[in-house]
Amino acid sequence: MNDQPLTILKIGGAVLEQAAARAEMLRVFAALPRPAILVHGGGRRADELSRQLGIEPLMVEGRRITDAPTLEIVTMVYAGSLNKELVAALQALGCNAVGLSGADGDVIRAHQRRGSAIDYGFAGDIDVVNTALLKNLLSIGLVPVICPITHDGAGQLLNTNADTIAATLAVALAADFAVSLRYSFERPGVLADPRDDDSVIASLDAVSYRRYREAGVITAGMIPKLDNAFSALASGVREVVIGNAASIGAGRATVLRGI
Amino acid sequence: MNDQPLTILKIGGAVLEQAAARAEMLRVFAALPRPAILVHGGGRRADELSRQLGIEPLMVEGRRITDAPTLEIVTMVYAGSLNKELVAALQALGCNAVGLSGADGDVIRAHQRRGSAIDYGFAGDIDVVNTALLKNLLSIGLVPVICPITHDGAGQLLNTNADTIAATLAVALAADFAVSLRYSFERPGVLADPRDDDSVIASLDAVSYRRYREAGVITAGMIPKLDNAFSALASGVREVVIGNAASIGAGRATVLRGI
Repeated sequence: MNDQPLTILKIGGAVLEQAAARAEMLRVFAALPRPAILVHGGGRRADELSRQLGIEPLMVEGRRITDAPTLEIVTMVYAGSLNKELVAALQALGCNAVGLSGADGDVIRAHQRRGSAIDYGFAGDIDVVNTALLKNLLSIGLVPVICPITHDGAGQLLNTNADTIAATLAVALAADFAVSLRYSFERPGVLADPRDDDSVIASLDAVSYRRYREAGVITAGMIPKLDNAFSALASGVREVVIGNAASIGAGRATVLRGI
Repeated sequence: MNDQPLTILKIGGAVLEQAAARAEMLRVFAALPRPAILVHGGGRRADELSRQLGIEPLMVEGRRITDAPTLEIVTMVYAGSLNKELVAALQALGCNAVGLSGADGDVIRAHQRRGSAIDYGFAGDIDVVNTALLKNLLSIGLVPVICPITHDGAGQLLNTNADTIAATLAVALAADFAVSLRYSFERPGVLADPRDDDSVIASLDAVSYRRYREAGVITAGMIPKLDNAFSALASGVREVVIGNAASIGAGRATVLRGI
């Protein structure tokens, strides 16, 4: 049932805003075996537009406080300019991309986060992924390019973290596919020495991950990312790969595996 | 072959920016028999964002001069905020909308307008509609919501007039469907007396259209719209309906028919 491979690549941050890095990442993505899904962020450009419109972005614990004007800004940037630039660039590479927010085809339904000590505004926590529709789109050769905007089914758009979307899609599709979830960031992988890009740890499982943490080799910044990755593996995702365009393209990124 | 009805509704202008009028139009659209396609504009909100960003919109003969910053603005507004607000609102009405630009799934390919006396910048004239993909999406129950952004297949997004997109889709799909193309605007239909909203002309064919023009009943503002409509009818579109939400919903708008 779930032996067909599916790659879900999440790109974000700096990669999206550097023309050369973005082009290289898209070439790597377009060359991946299909089916494949791309998930993107876009916080940096949203910050920039926000400031141009006189609204200082407000982040708490790495998450954006999304009031109504900020929701419109992130929707314009994530679902509008960034999503369509990525789709058009992939089309030019022969990859039949189709841009989607969670509202499109009801692909990702969420609810507004409530009861938190911090009021995040229109931040959405995911309830359900429409895997039937995604499978339909993949089966006709389309490559979904998913931006971090979701909806609540009652007409409200919501802002959802792109890393979370990628992991949630991976887990939801693990019943039907052997999912490889790949996170691209600035570094070539999880590093044994953060000052040395040549110190990529080739593979991690739960046991070696614990050992690296206890030894202080893997520290603060990487821990939430890796915790989420191991949680996706525990929920049926086949592998998680962490690296940048060059290391993912060359198979030299860090590979995480479940038990 | 083309006996299955398909409705293509184009909404734009004032309707999109008035919450009550927009909600009514979407209710009318959601209640239409499927399959159906929605095409929307959004010039007013694009003008507003443009001015907020310090760029005065420049129109020549009713068409926007689309330089690079303006292309980013219209992409953010048309494909981003407006398209996703419409999709989320339709989802809340039980209509399985999916927002698309022309780049998504290569639905509408265009080329940058050249050789015109006026440099329109990144304005796109349509080359081809991917009817196979649209039929695929319609066949799985999706309702495409199409914004007026297209692409050239080589990575460049382009700005294309929404009225033209609606008419071009209607003609392209006329081989497979009995297409009813509906244009919503501020008035309840083509009026025999522009000062009297009760003077809707119930139906027009090429002969009566000529007679009304010769008699000076139909004048300047409506002529390009109606010429385009009759051209779509001559290319196989079954009917064109012109009105507003109330008149289209109640079947009291102007119906144009070919020979």
